[in-house]
Amino acid sequence: MISQDSTLFGVILAGGSGTRFWPLSRSQYPKQVLHLLGSDSMLQATINRLLPLIPLEQMAVVTNAFQEQAIRLELYHKGWEGVQLWLEPQGKNTAAAVGLAATRLQTQPEYIMSVFPADHHIQDQAGLLSALETGARLAHAGYLVTFGILPTRPETGYGYIKAGVPLNAEKNSLVCARFVEKPDLERAQSFMREGNYYWNSGMFMFRVDAILQALARYVPTLHRGLMLLAENDQPALLEEVYQTFPNLSLDHGVLEQAENVAVVPVDLGWSDVGTWRAVQELFPADDRGNVILGRACDRDSGDCLIYSQERLVATLGLKQVIVVDTPDATLVCHRDRVQEVKDLVAELNQQNCVETREHRTVVRPWGQYTVMDEGLGYKVKQIVVEPGKRLSLQLHHHRAEHWVVVQGTAQVTIGCECKPVAANESVFVPPKTPHRLENLTSEPLRIIEIQTGTYLEEDDIVRLADDFWRSASDTTPQQNLKH
Amino acid sequence: MISQDSTLFGVILAGGSGTRFWPLSRSQYPKQVLHLLGSDSMLQATINRLLPLIPLEQMAVVTNAFQEQAIRLELYHKGWEGVQLWLEPQGKNTAAAVGLAATRLQTQPEYIMSVFPADHHIQDQAGLLSALETGARLAHAGYLVTFGILPTRPETGYGYIKAGVPLNAEKNSLVCARFVEKPDLERAQSFMREGNYYWNSGMFMFRVDAILQALARYVPTLHRGLMLLAENDQPALLEEVYQTFPNLSLDHGVLEQAENVAVVPVDLGWSDVGTWRAVQELFPADDRGNVILGRACDRDSGDCLIYSQERLVATLGLKQVIVVDTPDATLVCHRDRVQEVKDLVAELNQQNCVETREHRTVVRPWGQYTVMDEGLGYKVKQIVVEPGKRLSLQLHHHRAEHWVVVQGTAQVTIGCECKPVAANESVFVPPKTPHRLENLTSEPLRIIEIQTGTYLEEDDIVRLADDFWRSASDTTPQQNLKH
Repeated sequence: MISQDSTLFGVILAGGSGTRFWPLSRSQYPKQVLHLLGSDSMLQATINRLLPLIPLEQMAVVTNAFQEQAIRLELYHKGWEGVQLWLEPQGKNTAAAVGLAATRLQTQPEYIMSVFPADHHIQDQAGLLSALETGARLAHAGYLVTFGILPTRPETGYGYIKAGVPLNAEKNSLVCARFVEKPDLERAQSFMREGNYYWNSGMFMFRVDAILQALARYVPTLHRGLMLLAENDQPALLEEVYQTFPNLSLDHGVLEQAENVAVVPVDLGWSDVGTWRAVQELFPADDRGNVILGRACDRDSGDCLIYSQERLVATLGLKQVIVVDTPDATLVCHRDRVQEVKDLVAELNQQNCVETREHRTVVRPWGQYTVMDEGLGYKVKQIVVEPGKRLSLQLHHHRAEHWVVVQGTAQVTIGCECKPVAANESVFVPPKTPHRLENLTSEPLRIIEIQTGTYLEEDDIVRLADDFWRSASDTTPQQNLKH
Repeated sequence: MISQDSTLFGVILAGGSGTRFWPLSRSQYPKQVLHLLGSDSMLQATINRLLPLIPLEQMAVVTNAFQEQAIRLELYHKGWEGVQLWLEPQGKNTAAAVGLAATRLQTQPEYIMSVFPADHHIQDQAGLLSALETGARLAHAGYLVTFGILPTRPETGYGYIKAGVPLNAEKNSLVCARFVEKPDLERAQSFMREGNYYWNSGMFMFRVDAILQALARYVPTLHRGLMLLAENDQPALLEEVYQTFPNLSLDHGVLEQAENVAVVPVDLGWSDVGTWRAVQELFPADDRGNVILGRACDRDSGDCLIYSQERLVATLGLKQVIVVDTPDATLVCHRDRVQEVKDLVAELNQQNCVETREHRTVVRPWGQYTVMDEGLGYKVKQIVVEPGKRLSLQLHHHRAEHWVVVQGTAQVTIGCECKPVAANESVFVPPKTPHRLENLTSEPLRIIEIQTGTYLEEDDIVRLADDFWRSASDTTPQQNLKH
């Protein structure tokens, strides 16, 4: 019987930018918030798996400022505002992220930090929880604990952990002999034959004091910087100190050199979901090996992944091709080249393509908007406000807005006037005028907004009051999450 | 020196539905009106090539009612309203189409009908005109003239003409020995070796009386029906009689059996542009054999055609793949399977996909509109009215319209009121109210129209007056083309 353990503290590492999942992922909508494998996002699924063992109040997500809004929204949609958000000023790999978390927890040196990537898939939750209980006991005893996935194929895309002799402390645990970088196929095959090699899952457990000691010993520059930050919680200092941090992973930077490292072998239906090809492998295929998701029509293709969010995609006679379609961009890629999607995105970034940064549909805590059309001097949005929600009281310096209600009833504030606006009615919001859009009903409210003006970017907004965490006057967003 | 010949009459066959070019072609936007190979559509280019020899007033386009609007618009945009439009009630292949044209011309039995498919590509216009002059002399002398393209490869996708002995009447002309259906590769190779085989171009020339005599002799049922129609020009009869017509091509139904058939060999840089692959071959390729048109970013693909109208398409490591992207649908297809695009479209039709019927952007004589968004009870369009143009005076029974001007100035009539509406202003058009949108300025007018109501289809329109050929009260559209 699993029960929550008050000394366990979950640390979710959610700093990845996930360019490998373009065009579904964007720089402002990274892999960890994608709802790729079901109704939950990767991040939500990660937290969900841990809940039987770790209460929400004992969890934190480590991410960076650029992805803060997307992560916060995923937590908000689950009612998980109790989860803490620890922001790095820039991504510096896992040693820094885990170090920052350990520093935040150093007043509880006996806490067991349980570190999880936010963007992996694990099929066997019960197996995971059982392994974590084993891990917790080892961590209590002072071990730095890793989890090794039983390899099912000579995979060259993962790092490996070589296990040594069994530990006396716990059955089903071994000494960690060493970490091995991604091998070539021949070495991977020899690892399979030898049998004492495991995939490095990137999940770890250790006492706060144990990992801080290890950091002090093996990455002293990082440790010194972290201690400085612990004494002086200034954003400017955080930024300055982070620039000095080495770009190091925890396993190679710290655990590889430590002596008290244990490995718990596990078989959990694990995948790091690293590429579109990995996504293909997680779905059942049809007779010809195709995975077809969304509005697609195929004729006689084989071993393909066809994924369409909304639009019609028709495919004919393809072999081993991956097609991913979003409303504003389409990727067509040979299956063996998925690793290069990140290079393709780098090229698109160089061409300053907006399609690498944001989606046409942007989710907000009050609902969502979709950019339907834009041109010189105007922009058209479809805006959906969920029942009972309202946008911030705001004004724009440079643009006017025409609102036409097409579904539901809006409660509209413009200047000093507040009135209901029903479907098929419209209102005009002049520039520099405080206004608010609100849905007091129990049905969704849908409006078409036509912005006109010479400057139409999202940053022309002054939030005078907000129900969420976004008001300009509010510097402690966490407290403002619920009204 | 080429000069127009008053006995020549150009007959352009433009009845094809062009499903092979989906998603660029749609049932309401067939191949002949596609602007695939330059700024002119296939139809416009076909007419343009003939103009040095045949005046506009001596040309007719034969098409069917379903494609009338699209064809008429192509002529209108060129100022070619003088070209006649002869409508078949249904497509019955080329024998019926040519027969209908001959019937319309039977009061001028000495006219030379010059028959051209509307959707082929010819690079060498001068060579074509010169060949037509040769053909005209042969036709005057009573021959049924075909044009045989000098084959450059053992193509299995075309029919062939086998030439016999040279004709005495004209140098560079031969007796046509027989027509050969599309051969297999072995036969096509033997044709190349023998040297007296030509590709059947589908272009013909003959006197009106000569082709009518041939039709009477070889397809008497068709000829009898045509004579009936010549005596009695009723639309209902036309429809009834057409149903009895055999589905026959002119070459196989008539010319194959006739004795006085000549072939003029030509080498014109000709292509029937039958598939996306043929399009690929008409554009210069890059180092790796790719033709990339539009907003596409490729990384290391080879022998591909990537065509994007507007959206971003990114491709990676593809071989021999064709990608065609339109705002609402994408085709991804192996290059060797392009012939099956029509079967794919048949499947999509069975699924009742709107994407086989029309584009999101629809061109009108006054400008164009684009459907940006639609949902239950509403539709959003961007409408562009060209300078000096206006839409019809119209009303809708079931929908209201909100118009927001985003560029230029509109002259708006609603009921009895007529007023200018400037950029950033809006007006409301209630249901059942006569209204008109007009651009009196010399700049384009752009508005966003939000329709609301329970029925939002295009057929909820009563045209009270129209500058074009579309007013309900007007049954002679041709005369109404210009105000």
